[in-house]
Amino acid sequence: MRILVTNDDGIFAKGIQELVKGLKGVGEIFVIAPASERSACGHGITVRQPIKVRKYHWQDKEVKAWAVEGTPADCVKIGITTLLEKTPDIVISGINKGSNLGTDVLYSGTVSAAIEGIILGVPSLSISLDSFTSEDYTIASQVANILCRDMLNNQLAPDTLLNVNVPAVPKSEIKGWKVTKLGERKYENIFEHRKDPHGNDYYWLAGQVVPPSTQDEELDVVAAEKNYISVTPIHFDLTNYRIMDQVKKWGIETKGI
Amino acid sequence: MRILVTNDDGIFAKGIQELVKGLKGVGEIFVIAPASERSACGHGITVRQPIKVRKYHWQDKEVKAWAVEGTPADCVKIGITTLLEKTPDIVISGINKGSNLGTDVLYSGTVSAAIEGIILGVPSLSISLDSFTSEDYTIASQVANILCRDMLNNQLAPDTLLNVNVPAVPKSEIKGWKVTKLGERKYENIFEHRKDPHGNDYYWLAGQVVPPSTQDEELDVVAAEKNYISVTPIHFDLTNYRIMDQVKKWGIETKGI
Repeated sequence: MRILVTNDDGIFAKGIQELVKGLKGVGEIFVIAPASERSACGHGITVRQPIKVRKYHWQDKEVKAWAVEGTPADCVKIGITTLLEKTPDIVISGINKGSNLGTDVLYSGTVSAAIEGIILGVPSLSISLDSFTSEDYTIASQVANILCRDMLNNQLAPDTLLNVNVPAVPKSEIKGWKVTKLGERKYENIFEHRKDPHGNDYYWLAGQVVPPSTQDEELDVVAAEKNYISVTPIHFDLTNYRIMDQVKKWGIETKGI
Repeated sequence: MRILVTNDDGIFAKGIQELVKGLKGVGEIFVIAPASERSACGHGITVRQPIKVRKYHWQDKEVKAWAVEGTPADCVKIGITTLLEKTPDIVISGINKGSNLGTDVLYSGTVSAAIEGIILGVPSLSISLDSFTSEDYTIASQVANILCRDMLNNQLAPDTLLNVNVPAVPKSEIKGWKVTKLGERKYENIFEHRKDPHGNDYYWLAGQVVPPSTQDEELDVVAAEKNYISVTPIHFDLTNYRIMDQVKKWGIETKGI
């Protein structure tokens, strides 16, 4: 089995190193990750600039690695189409420092890398640790190992990925696993306004998460809060089928110009 | 009616200027757009750097405008939560130079700005001209006017946006309007490999679009190719509901750690 590993915290991040250790023995590992941090870059790709790629000497000599001056989606795209000789069997993105839940997945470079995987027809997994401070990726790395084996054994539709969030608590406090759907993630006090020394306005994105307004444990935002390992199947089709007929009823299709 | 206008080609682009002219008379217009081009930035947001915002003097004095050193999603987020005194009734993003069809919408700053609109509960419209060379936004700008009025008259679910692609052909060659779903957009020869003067590898994202493999005019990629104005309802819920049960059947929820 061939595993393409990437992330958005950059190739030097502890999360990706622990992920690679956790996957040892599952298959041949290829790391293709951003040369520097690319958090919150969403599904950005590099089109106006060239993308520099360098071989990277991973500590474990069995791991082949490249550092890419680009986004996580660039890494997966250039990895699958250009750098790797054979298509990988799975793409795994993470382990992200901080959760990727609900509407936040749209901003996430980690999840977007996995979405790029399924766009290119490779089953994918994105995995995040629900803490911006913890450096303990032990459980998340075990979870990646378990799910990677499961995904390789249970063929998923080629357009599906699993987005996984692991609570940053001791093993004894983890309540179990939940297959979830994406919830809403809202923030308050989003921007902090400042003035530079010359009197010009600037803003920092900040803000606190508003606790979920429901207790529905089928939502990833709730499952994570209750210390479940949340596993959300995701696809890339944003079509709102429910609304198609409603819009047709306006008579749009019979309009002139 | 209050209309928030943005784009990803930057506040100086002809597309946004023609869009604003086309919306004249529909409502009060606020332009909040990136200070420079931000194509293909996907749903990236700026979290590690401050976001500079400057007042911008639009030629039409009735239009209030701000140039934002950030992504299109930043513009909509900071516009709705911070810069505007009242929530706008609609967000319109465009007119993009080049189509945003099928899987490509995930990479699109234009569409992501509109997705940010619906995340914040404001009905949104993204509009693109299907040409990288044409400078004639006349028809696209009329289409924006028509759909903006329609959307304000026909209440859409707050989580829905319309993604519109307008053919870059004379009016007589436009076949009509189609309400569509997102198709697949595939490319071949994606990366061009070069070496810099020092012998280091770099790559340019390039590639040609592969023509759609189907003739189904309900797909945006086909409708656009056949010179229809394509209108696709989009939401932001990436959950793959179809796969949830399949994943539960693996026994994930009863696993240990």
